[in-house]
Amino acid sequence: MNTLTITQKKITTYSSVPTIEQLQTVHHQIAPYIHRTPILTSQSINAMANANLFFKCENFQKIGAFKMRGAACAALALSEGEIARGLATHSSGNHAQAVAKSAQNLKTKAYIVMPSNAPEIKQKATASYGAEVILCEPTLAARESTLAEVVARTGATFIHPYDNYNVIAGQSTCAKELIEDSPILDAIIAPIGGGGLMSGTCLAARYFSPLTKVYGAEPVAVNDAYRSFKSGQIEENTTTDTIADGLKTNTCQKTFDIMKTHLEDIFTVSEIEIVQAMRIIWERMKIIIEPSCAVPLAAILKHPEPFTGKKVGVILTGGNVDLSNLPFTKL
Amino acid sequence: MNTLTITQKKITTYSSVPTIEQLQTVHHQIAPYIHRTPILTSQSINAMANANLFFKCENFQKIGAFKMRGAACAALALSEGEIARGLATHSSGNHAQAVAKSAQNLKTKAYIVMPSNAPEIKQKATASYGAEVILCEPTLAARESTLAEVVARTGATFIHPYDNYNVIAGQSTCAKELIEDSPILDAIIAPIGGGGLMSGTCLAARYFSPLTKVYGAEPVAVNDAYRSFKSGQIEENTTTDTIADGLKTNTCQKTFDIMKTHLEDIFTVSEIEIVQAMRIIWERMKIIIEPSCAVPLAAILKHPEPFTGKKVGVILTGGNVDLSNLPFTKL
Repeated sequence: MNTLTITQKKITTYSSVPTIEQLQTVHHQIAPYIHRTPILTSQSINAMANANLFFKCENFQKIGAFKMRGAACAALALSEGEIARGLATHSSGNHAQAVAKSAQNLKTKAYIVMPSNAPEIKQKATASYGAEVILCEPTLAARESTLAEVVARTGATFIHPYDNYNVIAGQSTCAKELIEDSPILDAIIAPIGGGGLMSGTCLAARYFSPLTKVYGAEPVAVNDAYRSFKSGQIEENTTTDTIADGLKTNTCQKTFDIMKTHLEDIFTVSEIEIVQAMRIIWERMKIIIEPSCAVPLAAILKHPEPFTGKKVGVILTGGNVDLSNLPFTKL
Repeated sequence: MNTLTITQKKITTYSSVPTIEQLQTVHHQIAPYIHRTPILTSQSINAMANANLFFKCENFQKIGAFKMRGAACAALALSEGEIARGLATHSSGNHAQAVAKSAQNLKTKAYIVMPSNAPEIKQKATASYGAEVILCEPTLAARESTLAEVVARTGATFIHPYDNYNVIAGQSTCAKELIEDSPILDAIIAPIGGGGLMSGTCLAARYFSPLTKVYGAEPVAVNDAYRSFKSGQIEENTTTDTIADGLKTNTCQKTFDIMKTHLEDIFTVSEIEIVQAMRIIWERMKIIIEPSCAVPLAAILKHPEPFTGKKVGVILTGGNVDLSNLPFTKL
């Protein structure tokens, strides 16, 4: 009876940390719009890491990244009237495509504000889902003011990439599947950008595998979450100079509060360590991953202590890279 | 009773075209040494090709290529005395690693003759399986004479990469799995180098899915099999100038006779078409494949007639590429 109720429930707009029942509802309701991505293992990487790693392959997710989960959840929470007026966001990355695809799924419009220096390939990919791409100056202020104009003009609903409990709930389904499809995991590790994936991962682990320890991984160059975790209050990045383009953003109160409560630790790695780990995954696993998702493996290789001999889930967040501009020749 | 007999039989040295029972025995006996690789599909590539494509992902095979199947089969056919004296081959590519790994599996030595200009990464990969790598001048004559010396000195058994019915039987297990794990296929397409994979694919289709048509694909630059198929007699390549480094070799009587009998047609593609198809697979499927395995998709996109609206199995042969030297920036 309880299960039936959960699976029949509509997703609503969550105004506080999502509950276990809400995560179950979300996972059931977004299922038609996402892939249940495979979990891959590699004997040779296990030998390097001296651990059993279970890689959750969100590079095979729709639009090529986990962002599809959060956007689908946020879109499904809207009323019919809201859906009719469309979805809006500003993003130069995977969230842009995820919102565009979610709007297409719901047969409504998407308005995506992108900085004018966003790679043409990303603009085209976003437009290919039927979204209206609105270019602006490449500053956060211009992105926010342009988005405000678009929302005022269209009545579309702004879907923030992570400062949104529905997005967090959607991202949690990635770790929920990892937990369901793996042996019992001693640990899960994920990268931290704005913290949407990481806080969702914390919730999924707490609810569905309470003994599993959760770790975060971050580039040294944009270690805002690391510093925040150590100081106990939100700190901001002073640079965005990292190859891990999905991890440049700062956390927010919603995501930080969840991470602060549930994270075991956060490890940081250098740019060269990120590229080396990315190359290991490309060469050994024969799959294409973004630099951002190499950060957790780099952390495991650099800080082996908590992972040695353990079963560790590793979230590979996406696979959208520009093949014309790869970092390997520089190594 | 018959099945039991097949699965308990030892692989022997085959001196004529392998039978259906021999392929069944081979598949059962080599199973512990190979992965049953996944079959992936892509909605966006299906839309481009106007067909339903089922990609058999041998890039996820042990040593990163289908070659493991043939080498394992050839090694398991040897007597205890032969195994004790070791395995030998000359190769600068995936067959080198496959023979090295097969020797390691059987706890014996491998002697691999490689041209001195073989990429260091391939030499290291071969040596990492415990093989003795013997460098020689980069000519076919030097490779053959050096191998002859090694065989005379050690008593090791030479495993040819394709002019060997046991190798052909091993390679056939790839299409056998593709047939078993897909809906009924209208067609299967594979690339042609020496023809070991292609002739094995022909046999598997004839025995296990007789109505499935089998096609070959080849770079224009090394179209020896295409010209041989059209003329009815073995023709040789006049150049090796292709990015598809696995397809430079000429066919032999054993492989050509099987292909001549069972192939529906062979299609050829240009170098730029190969790189474009390779890029499509990397970008859309997020998997790493060698240039050689992009040749069949390039052929489907260039010659759509026999494939339109059909279910088509496509063999992706391997994923061993040098990430420091990728072709995409040139496009």
